[in-house]
Amino acid sequence: MAHRVVIYGGSGNLGRSLITLFNKNNWEVTSIGTRPNEEAAHNIVVSNKEESLEVQGKKVIQNSNSILNGEKYDAILCVAGGFCMGDLAKEDFLETADLMIKKILNPSLIASKLSTVNLKEGGFLMLTGVADLQSTPGFIGYGIAKAAVHHLFNSIASKKGGLPKNTKVMAIQPATIDTPDNRKGMPDADFSQWIPLDLLTRRIFEYTNGTLSVPQGKMVKITTKNGETSFVEL
Amino acid sequence: MAHRVVIYGGSGNLGRSLITLFNKNNWEVTSIGTRPNEEAAHNIVVSNKEESLEVQGKKVIQNSNSILNGEKYDAILCVAGGFCMGDLAKEDFLETADLMIKKILNPSLIASKLSTVNLKEGGFLMLTGVADLQSTPGFIGYGIAKAAVHHLFNSIASKKGGLPKNTKVMAIQPATIDTPDNRKGMPDADFSQWIPLDLLTRRIFEYTNGTLSVPQGKMVKITTKNGETSFVEL
Repeated sequence: MAHRVVIYGGSGNLGRSLITLFNKNNWEVTSIGTRPNEEAAHNIVVSNKEESLEVQGKKVIQNSNSILNGEKYDAILCVAGGFCMGDLAKEDFLETADLMIKKILNPSLIASKLSTVNLKEGGFLMLTGVADLQSTPGFIGYGIAKAAVHHLFNSIASKKGGLPKNTKVMAIQPATIDTPDNRKGMPDADFSQWIPLDLLTRRIFEYTNGTLSVPQGKMVKITTKNGETSFVEL
Repeated sequence: MAHRVVIYGGSGNLGRSLITLFNKNNWEVTSIGTRPNEEAAHNIVVSNKEESLEVQGKKVIQNSNSILNGEKYDAILCVAGGFCMGDLAKEDFLETADLMIKKILNPSLIASKLSTVNLKEGGFLMLTGVADLQSTPGFIGYGIAKAAVHHLFNSIASKKGGLPKNTKVMAIQPATIDTPDNRKGMPDADFSQWIPLDLLTRRIFEYTNGTLSVPQGKMVKITTKNGETSFVEL
Protein backbone atom coordinates (compact mmCIF):
# COMPACT_ATOMS: atom_id res chain seq x y z
CA MET A 1 0.00 0.00 0.00
CA ALA A 2 1.34 3.39 -0.96
CA HIS A 3 2.23 5.91 1.71
CA ARG A 4 0.16 9.07 1.59
CA VAL A 5 1.57 12.56 1.88
CA VAL A 6 0.07 16.03 1.67
CA ILE A 7 2.22 18.76 0.17
CA TYR A 8 0.60 22.05 1.17
CA GLY A 9 1.96 24.60 -1.29
CA GLY A 10 2.31 22.07 -4.09
CA SER A 11 2.50 24.63 -6.86
CA GLY A 12 5.44 26.54 -5.36
CA ASN A 13 9.08 25.82 -6.14
CA LEU A 14 9.79 23.67 -3.09
CA GLY A 15 6.37 22.03 -3.29
CA ARG A 16 6.85 21.00 -6.92
CA SER A 17 10.28 19.63 -6.22
CA LEU A 18 8.94 17.59 -3.28
CA ILE A 19 6.05 16.20 -5.31
CA THR A 20 8.43 15.01 -8.03
CA LEU A 21 10.59 13.18 -5.47
CA PHE A 22 7.71 11.63 -3.52
CA ASN A 23 6.14 10.49 -6.80
CA LYS A 24 9.37 8.88 -7.90
CA ASN A 25 9.33 6.94 -4.65
CA ASN A 26 5.75 5.80 -5.14
CA TRP A 27 4.12 7.91 -2.46
CA GLU A 28 0.53 8.91 -3.15
CA VAL A 29 0.65 12.70 -3.17
CA THR A 30 -2.15 15.15 -2.45
CA SER A 31 -1.23 18.68 -3.43
CA ILE A 32 -2.95 21.64 -1.82
CA GLY A 33 -2.43 25.04 -3.34
CA THR A 34 -3.84 27.89 -5.35
CA ARG A 35 -3.07 26.03 -8.57
CA PRO A 36 -3.20 22.30 -9.28
CA ASN A 37 0.02 20.32 -9.58
CA GLU A 38 -0.17 18.02 -12.62
CA GLU A 39 2.11 15.41 -11.09
CA ALA A 40 0.06 14.95 -7.93
CA ALA A 41 -2.36 12.05 -7.60
CA HIS A 42 -4.88 14.40 -6.00
CA ASN A 43 -5.31 18.15 -5.95
CA ILE A 44 -7.20 20.41 -3.59
CA VAL A 45 -7.30 23.91 -5.03
CA VAL A 46 -8.07 26.82 -2.72
CA SER A 47 -8.20 30.54 -3.32
CA ASN A 48 -6.30 32.24 -0.56
CA LYS A 49 -7.46 35.62 -1.78
CA GLU A 50 -11.18 35.08 -2.22
CA GLU A 51 -11.91 32.44 0.40
CA SER A 52 -11.67 33.09 4.12
CA LEU A 53 -9.45 31.01 6.39
CA GLU A 54 -12.51 29.10 7.59
CA VAL A 55 -13.88 28.45 4.10
CA GLN A 56 -10.49 27.20 2.92
CA GLY A 57 -10.16 25.04 6.01
CA LYS A 58 -13.56 23.43 5.46
CA LYS A 59 -12.80 22.86 1.79
CA VAL A 60 -9.46 21.25 2.55
CA ILE A 61 -10.93 18.93 5.19
CA GLN A 62 -13.95 17.94 3.11
CA ASN A 63 -11.91 17.25 -0.02
CA SER A 64 -9.34 15.46 2.03
CA ASN A 65 -12.02 13.19 3.55
CA SER A 66 -13.26 12.27 0.07
CA ILE A 67 -9.77 11.54 -1.20
CA LEU A 68 -8.85 9.44 1.83
CA ASN A 69 -12.09 7.48 1.95
CA GLY A 70 -11.50 6.38 5.53
CA GLU A 71 -7.70 6.11 5.29
CA LYS A 72 -5.22 8.53 6.86
CA TYR A 73 -2.14 10.46 5.75
CA ASP A 74 1.32 9.35 6.80
CA ALA A 75 2.62 12.89 6.54
CA ILE A 76 1.47 16.48 6.08
CA LEU A 77 4.16 18.91 4.93
CA CYS A 78 3.36 22.60 4.75
CA VAL A 79 5.80 24.43 2.49
CA ALA A 80 3.39 27.13 1.31
CA GLY A 81 4.76 30.63 1.42
CA GLY A 82 5.63 33.70 -0.53
CA PHE A 83 7.57 36.92 -0.27
CA CYS A 84 6.75 40.59 -0.72
CA MET A 85 8.67 43.72 0.14
CA GLY A 86 6.58 46.22 2.07
CA ASP A 87 7.58 48.88 4.59
CA LEU A 88 5.12 50.90 6.63
CA ALA A 89 5.34 53.96 4.41
CA LYS A 90 4.33 52.06 1.28
CA GLU A 91 0.91 52.90 -0.11
CA ASP A 92 -0.13 49.26 -0.26
CA PHE A 93 1.29 48.29 3.15
CA LEU A 94 -1.97 46.82 4.46
CA GLU A 95 -2.64 44.94 1.23
CA THR A 96 0.82 43.39 1.36
CA ALA A 97 0.50 42.45 5.03
CA ASP A 98 -2.84 40.81 4.32
CA LEU A 99 -1.40 38.88 1.38
CA MET A 100 1.52 37.56 3.44
CA ILE A 101 -0.84 36.41 6.21
CA LYS A 102 -2.88 34.60 3.57
CA LYS A 103 0.10 33.02 1.80
CA ILE A 104 2.25 32.11 4.80
CA LEU A 105 0.22 31.92 8.00
CA ASN A 106 -3.14 30.58 6.84
CA PRO A 107 -1.76 27.45 5.11
CA SER A 108 0.23 26.66 8.28
CA LEU A 109 -2.93 26.98 10.38
CA ILE A 110 -4.95 24.79 8.01
CA ALA A 111 -2.21 22.14 7.68
CA SER A 112 -1.97 21.99 11.49
CA LYS A 113 -5.74 21.65 11.83
CA LEU A 114 -5.85 19.02 9.05
CA SER A 115 -3.38 16.91 10.99
CA THR A 116 -5.82 16.64 13.92
CA VAL A 117 -8.43 15.23 11.54
CA ASN A 118 -6.60 13.14 8.96
CA LEU A 119 -3.08 12.34 10.12
CA LYS A 120 -2.50 8.79 11.29
CA GLU A 121 -1.24 8.06 14.79
CA GLY A 122 2.52 8.43 14.78
CA GLY A 123 2.33 10.45 11.56
CA PHE A 124 4.56 13.37 10.59
CA LEU A 125 3.71 17.08 10.44
CA MET A 126 6.20 19.66 9.19
CA LEU A 127 5.79 23.43 9.05
CA THR A 128 8.08 25.99 7.44
CA GLY A 129 9.46 29.00 9.27
CA VAL A 130 12.44 31.14 8.40
CA ALA A 131 16.03 31.24 9.68
CA ASP A 132 17.18 33.99 12.03
CA LEU A 133 14.00 36.04 12.08
CA GLN A 134 14.78 39.54 13.34
CA SER A 135 12.87 42.77 12.86
CA THR A 136 11.97 43.18 9.20
CA PRO A 137 11.25 46.88 8.57
CA GLY A 138 11.51 46.49 4.79
CA PHE A 139 9.16 43.51 4.57
CA ILE A 140 6.86 43.73 7.55
CA GLY A 141 4.03 41.57 6.23
CA TYR A 142 6.42 38.70 5.57
CA GLY A 143 7.99 39.08 9.01
CA ILE A 144 4.78 39.17 11.02
CA ALA A 145 3.43 36.12 9.17
CA LYS A 146 6.61 34.12 9.81
CA ALA A 147 6.72 35.25 13.46
CA ALA A 148 3.17 33.97 13.80
CA VAL A 149 4.13 30.62 12.22
CA HIS A 150 7.01 30.26 14.70
CA HIS A 151 4.60 30.90 17.55
CA LEU A 152 2.08 28.46 16.09
CA PHE A 153 4.76 25.80 15.82
CA ASN A 154 5.99 26.30 19.38
CA SER A 155 2.42 26.05 20.61
CA ILE A 156 1.36 22.91 18.74
CA ALA A 157 4.71 21.24 19.45
CA SER A 158 4.29 21.71 23.19
CA LYS A 159 2.81 19.03 25.39
CA LYS A 160 -0.82 20.05 25.30
CA GLY A 161 -0.65 21.23 21.70
CA GLY A 162 -3.68 19.23 20.57
CA LEU A 163 -1.94 17.11 17.90
CA PRO A 164 -2.88 13.41 17.62
CA LYS A 165 -1.01 11.08 19.96
CA ASN A 166 2.59 10.36 18.97
CA THR A 167 2.60 12.84 16.11
CA LYS A 168 6.11 13.58 14.96
CA VAL A 169 6.33 17.32 14.47
CA MET A 170 9.11 19.65 13.40
CA ALA A 171 9.63 22.85 11.44
CA ILE A 172 12.32 23.78 9.01
CA GLN A 173 13.75 27.29 9.11
CA PRO A 174 15.45 27.74 5.76
CA ALA A 175 17.42 30.79 4.71
CA THR A 176 17.09 31.67 1.00
CA ILE A 177 16.51 28.61 -1.17
CA ASP A 178 18.10 28.38 -4.62
CA THR A 179 14.92 28.22 -6.70
CA PRO A 180 14.19 29.36 -10.25
CA ASP A 181 11.94 32.12 -8.88
CA ASN A 182 14.58 33.39 -6.46
CA ARG A 183 17.21 33.43 -9.23
CA LYS A 184 14.81 35.43 -11.38
CA GLY A 185 14.04 37.84 -8.51
CA MET A 186 17.68 38.30 -7.41
CA PRO A 187 19.82 37.58 -10.48
CA ASP A 188 22.94 39.21 -9.04
CA ALA A 189 23.00 37.33 -5.74
CA ASP A 190 25.77 34.91 -4.80
CA PHE A 191 24.01 31.59 -5.32
CA SER A 192 26.67 29.71 -3.35
CA GLN A 193 25.07 31.23 -0.21
CA TRP A 194 21.67 29.76 -1.08
CA ILE A 195 20.30 26.37 -0.08
CA PRO A 196 20.32 23.95 -3.04
CA LEU A 197 16.71 23.02 -3.77
CA ASP A 198 17.49 19.37 -4.48
CA LEU A 199 19.40 18.96 -1.25
CA LEU A 200 16.58 20.47 0.82
CA THR A 201 13.98 18.36 -1.00
CA ARG A 202 15.94 15.18 -0.30
CA ARG A 203 16.39 16.10 3.33
CA ILE A 204 12.66 16.65 3.84
CA PHE A 205 11.98 13.34 2.12
CA GLU A 206 14.39 11.61 4.49
CA TYR A 207 12.68 13.07 7.57
CA THR A 208 9.36 11.92 6.12
CA ASN A 209 10.29 8.34 5.22
CA GLY A 210 12.22 7.74 8.44
CA THR A 211 15.75 7.60 6.99
CA LEU A 212 16.49 10.58 9.22
CA SER A 213 14.88 10.67 12.64
CA VAL A 214 12.63 13.66 13.20
CA PRO A 215 13.98 16.15 15.76
CA GLN A 216 10.77 16.02 17.75
CA GLY A 217 9.21 19.42 18.52
CA LYS A 218 12.22 21.28 17.21
CA MET A 219 12.92 23.78 14.49
CA VAL A 220 15.87 23.04 12.25
CA LYS A 221 17.74 26.04 10.95
CA ILE A 222 19.07 25.50 7.45
CA THR A 223 21.74 27.75 6.00
CA THR A 224 24.30 27.53 3.25
CA LYS A 225 27.74 29.13 3.28
CA ASN A 226 30.02 28.87 0.26
CA GLY A 227 28.10 25.88 -1.02
CA GLU A 228 28.10 24.03 2.32
CA THR A 229 24.67 23.50 3.85
CA SER A 230 24.19 23.00 7.57
CA PHE A 231 21.19 21.79 9.54
CA VAL A 232 21.11 23.00 13.13
CA GLU A 233 18.46 21.89 15.61
CA LEU A 234 17.27 24.87 17.64
CA MET B 1 -5.96 74.40 20.76
CA ALA B 2 -6.88 70.97 22.02
CA HIS B 3 -4.48 68.08 21.62
CA ARG B 4 -5.79 65.31 19.42
CA VAL B 5 -5.55 61.64 20.25
CA VAL B 6 -6.79 58.47 18.57
CA ILE B 7 -7.85 55.62 20.82
CA TYR B 8 -7.97 52.53 18.62
CA GLY B 9 -10.14 50.07 20.51
CA GLY B 10 -12.26 52.80 22.10
CA SER B 11 -15.15 50.54 23.03
CA GLY B 12 -13.03 48.06 24.99
CA ASN B 13 -12.39 48.29 28.72
CA LEU B 14 -8.99 49.99 28.51
CA GLY B 15 -10.11 52.13 25.58
CA ARG B 16 -13.15 53.45 27.44
CA SER B 17 -11.10 54.21 30.50
CA LEU B 18 -8.54 56.11 28.42
CA ILE B 19 -11.21 58.11 26.62
CA THR B 20 -12.73 59.21 29.93
CA LEU B 21 -9.34 60.40 31.20
CA PHE B 22 -8.29 62.16 27.99
CA ASN B 23 -11.70 63.86 27.84
CA LYS B 24 -11.35 65.09 31.40
CA ASN B 25 -8.05 66.66 30.39
CA ASN B 26 -9.59 68.35 27.37
CA TRP B 27 -7.99 66.26 24.66
CA GLU B 28 -10.02 65.89 21.49
CA VAL B 29 -10.58 62.15 21.21
CA THR B 30 -11.24 60.09 18.10
CA SER B 31 -12.36 56.59 18.95
CA ILE B 32 -11.91 53.78 16.46
CA GLY B 33 -13.66 50.52 17.14
CA THR B 34 -16.42 48.13 16.27
CA ARG B 35 -18.86 50.17 18.35
CA PRO B 36 -19.01 53.93 18.88
CA ASN B 37 -17.87 55.42 22.16
CA GLU B 38 -20.41 58.03 23.33
CA GLU B 39 -17.81 60.09 25.16
CA ALA B 40 -15.51 60.52 22.16
CA ALA B 41 -15.62 63.72 20.10
CA HIS B 42 -15.37 61.61 16.93
CA ASN B 43 -16.03 58.00 16.14
CA ILE B 44 -14.84 55.81 13.30
CA VAL B 45 -16.74 52.54 13.35
CA VAL B 46 -15.30 49.56 11.51
CA SER B 47 -16.47 45.98 11.21
CA ASN B 48 -13.50 43.74 11.79
CA LYS B 49 -15.55 40.72 10.81
CA GLU B 50 -17.16 41.85 7.58
CA GLU B 51 -14.59 44.29 6.23
CA SER B 52 -11.16 43.22 5.03
CA LEU B 53 -7.98 44.70 6.47
CA GLU B 54 -7.63 46.92 3.41
CA VAL B 55 -11.24 48.12 3.47
CA GLN B 56 -10.97 48.95 7.17
CA GLY B 57 -7.67 50.71 6.58
CA LYS B 58 -9.11 52.86 3.80
CA LYS B 59 -12.16 53.69 5.88
CA VAL B 60 -10.06 54.70 8.87
CA ILE B 61 -7.77 56.91 6.81
CA GLN B 62 -10.60 58.56 4.85
CA ASN B 63 -12.70 59.25 7.95
CA SER B 64 -9.63 60.41 9.78
CA ASN B 65 -8.81 62.87 6.99
CA SER B 66 -12.32 64.34 7.20
CA ILE B 67 -12.17 64.67 10.97
CA LEU B 68 -8.73 66.29 10.94
CA ASN B 69 -9.46 68.68 8.12
CA GLY B 70 -5.77 69.30 7.47
CA GLU B 71 -4.63 69.03 11.10
CA LYS B 72 -2.68 66.11 12.57
CA TYR B 73 -2.94 63.87 15.61
CA ASP B 74 -0.60 64.32 18.56
CA ALA B 75 -0.92 60.68 19.48
CA ILE B 76 -2.29 57.36 18.21
CA LEU B 77 -2.79 54.69 20.86
CA CYS B 78 -3.79 51.20 19.82
CA VAL B 79 -5.32 49.27 22.69
CA ALA B 80 -7.64 47.10 20.62
CA GLY B 81 -7.60 43.44 21.47
CA GLY B 82 -9.56 40.48 22.66
CA PHE B 83 -9.14 37.01 24.04
CA CYS B 84 -10.39 33.57 23.07
CA MET B 85 -9.40 30.12 24.21
CA GLY B 86 -8.73 27.77 21.31
CA ASP B 87 -6.43 24.75 21.04
CA LEU B 88 -5.71 22.92 17.81
CA ALA B 89 -8.14 20.09 18.50
CA LYS B 90 -11.10 22.44 18.91
CA GLU B 91 -13.71 22.27 16.16
CA ASP B 92 -13.65 26.04 15.62
CA PHE B 93 -9.87 26.42 15.80
CA LEU B 94 -9.55 28.23 12.46
CA GLU B 95 -12.49 30.50 13.21
CA THR B 96 -10.94 31.50 16.51
CA ALA B 97 -7.51 32.10 15.00
CA ASP B 98 -9.07 34.28 12.33
CA LEU B 99 -11.01 36.26 14.93
CA MET B 100 -7.90 36.91 17.01
CA ILE B 101 -5.98 38.11 13.96
CA LYS B 102 -8.86 40.47 13.21
CA LYS B 103 -9.22 41.76 16.77
CA ILE B 104 -5.57 42.02 17.77
CA LEU B 105 -3.28 42.19 14.76
CA ASN B 106 -5.31 44.12 12.20
CA PRO B 107 -5.96 47.17 14.43
CA SER B 108 -2.22 47.33 15.21
CA LEU B 109 -1.42 47.27 11.49
CA ILE B 110 -3.98 49.97 10.70
CA ALA B 111 -2.94 52.19 13.63
CA SER B 112 0.70 51.91 12.49
CA LYS B 113 -0.23 52.78 8.92
CA LEU B 114 -2.45 55.67 10.09
CA SER B 115 0.52 57.16 11.89
CA THR B 116 2.42 57.50 8.60
CA VAL B 117 -0.47 59.53 7.20
CA ASN B 118 -1.93 61.57 10.04
CA LEU B 119 0.49 61.69 12.97
CA LYS B 120 2.32 64.98 13.46
CA GLU B 121 6.10 65.14 13.42
CA GLY B 122 7.34 64.21 16.87
CA GLY B 123 3.99 62.58 17.66
CA PHE B 124 3.43 59.48 19.76
CA LEU B 125 2.44 55.97 18.64
CA MET B 126 1.75 53.21 21.11
CA LEU B 127 0.91 49.57 20.41
CA THR B 128 -0.18 46.88 22.84
CA GLY B 129 1.54 43.52 23.15
CA VAL B 130 1.44 41.06 26.00
CA ALA B 131 3.85 40.29 28.84
CA ASP B 132 6.01 37.16 28.77
CA LEU B 133 4.65 35.63 25.60
CA GLN B 134 5.56 31.94 25.49
CA SER B 135 3.98 29.11 23.56
CA THR B 136 0.20 29.21 24.03
CA PRO B 137 -1.19 25.74 23.20
CA GLY B 138 -4.52 26.48 24.85
CA PHE B 139 -5.10 29.78 23.06
CA ILE B 140 -3.17 29.61 19.84
CA GLY B 141 -5.05 32.31 17.93
CA TYR B 142 -4.39 34.84 20.67
CA GLY B 143 -0.72 33.87 20.83
CA ILE B 144 0.01 34.06 17.12
CA ALA B 145 -1.72 37.45 16.86
CA LYS B 146 0.28 38.86 19.79
CA ALA B 147 3.54 37.37 18.44
CA ALA B 148 2.83 39.12 15.17
CA VAL B 149 2.19 42.43 16.97
CA HIS B 150 5.53 42.09 18.77
CA HIS B 151 7.24 41.54 15.43
CA LEU B 152 5.38 44.46 13.89
CA PHE B 153 6.46 46.70 16.75
CA ASN B 154 10.12 45.67 16.55
CA SER B 155 10.05 46.32 12.82
CA ILE B 156 8.43 49.76 12.84
CA ALA B 157 10.50 50.82 15.85
CA SER B 158 13.74 50.04 14.05
CA LYS B 159 15.69 52.68 12.17
CA LYS B 160 14.19 52.21 8.73
CA GLY B 161 10.74 51.40 10.07
CA GLY B 162 8.94 53.95 7.90
CA LEU B 163 7.39 56.05 10.69
CA PRO B 164 7.35 59.85 10.31
CA LYS B 165 10.52 61.62 11.45
CA ASN B 166 10.95 61.87 15.20
CA THR B 167 7.94 59.72 15.99
CA LYS B 168 7.99 58.58 19.58
CA VAL B 169 7.05 54.92 19.57
CA MET B 170 6.67 52.33 22.28
CA ALA B 171 4.54 49.32 23.15
CA ILE B 172 3.07 48.24 26.43
CA GLN B 173 3.14 44.56 27.37
CA PRO B 174 0.56 44.20 30.09
CA ALA B 175 -0.20 41.03 31.99
CA THR B 176 -3.88 40.58 32.93
CA ILE B 177 -5.63 43.91 33.51
CA ASP B 178 -8.24 44.24 36.25
CA THR B 179 -11.24 45.09 34.08
CA PRO B 180 -14.96 44.45 34.59
CA ASP B 181 -14.88 41.94 31.70
CA ASN B 182 -11.92 40.04 33.13
CA ARG B 183 -13.58 39.87 36.58
CA LYS B 184 -16.69 38.50 34.92
CA GLY B 185 -14.66 35.95 32.92
CA MET B 186 -12.44 34.83 35.82
CA PRO B 187 -14.45 35.54 39.00
CA ASP B 188 -12.27 33.30 41.20
CA ALA B 189 -8.92 34.81 40.25
CA ASP B 190 -6.72 36.68 42.72
CA PHE B 191 -7.31 40.27 41.63
CA SER B 192 -4.28 41.49 43.58
CA GLN B 193 -2.16 39.93 40.79
CA TRP B 194 -3.93 41.98 38.12
CA ILE B 195 -2.96 45.42 36.85
CA PRO B 196 -5.33 48.09 38.19
CA LEU B 197 -7.12 49.63 35.21
CA ASP B 198 -6.95 53.20 36.57
CA LEU B 199 -3.23 52.97 37.22
CA LEU B 200 -2.54 51.70 33.71
CA THR B 201 -4.80 54.35 32.18
CA ARG B 202 -3.00 57.12 34.07
CA ARG B 203 0.39 55.76 33.08
CA ILE B 204 -0.51 55.73 29.37
CA PHE B 205 -1.85 59.27 29.71
CA GLU B 206 1.45 60.36 31.26
CA TYR B 207 3.48 58.87 28.41
CA THR B 208 1.18 60.64 25.97
CA ASN B 209 1.21 64.12 27.54
CA GLY B 210 4.94 64.07 28.22
CA THR B 211 4.85 63.83 32.03
CA LEU B 212 6.71 60.56 31.59
CA SER B 213 9.31 60.36 28.87
CA VAL B 214 8.59 57.71 26.26
CA PRO B 215 11.06 54.78 26.32
CA GLN B 216 11.82 55.20 22.63
CA GLY B 217 11.48 52.02 20.57
CA LYS B 218 11.01 49.86 23.63
CA MET B 219 8.37 47.58 25.00
CA VAL B 220 7.42 48.09 28.63
CA LYS B 221 6.41 44.99 30.51
CA ILE B 222 3.71 45.69 33.07
CA THR B 223 2.96 43.21 35.83
CA THR B 224 1.34 43.33 39.23
CA LYS B 225 2.30 41.22 42.22
CA ASN B 226 0.35 41.44 45.47
CA GLY B 227 -1.06 44.80 44.48
CA GLU B 228 2.31 46.27 43.45
CA THR B 229 2.63 47.16 39.78
CA SER B 230 5.98 47.34 38.04
CA PHE B 231 6.94 48.78 34.67
CA VAL B 232 10.05 47.25 33.16
CA GLU B 233 11.60 48.48 29.92
CA LEU B 234 12.62 45.53 27.76
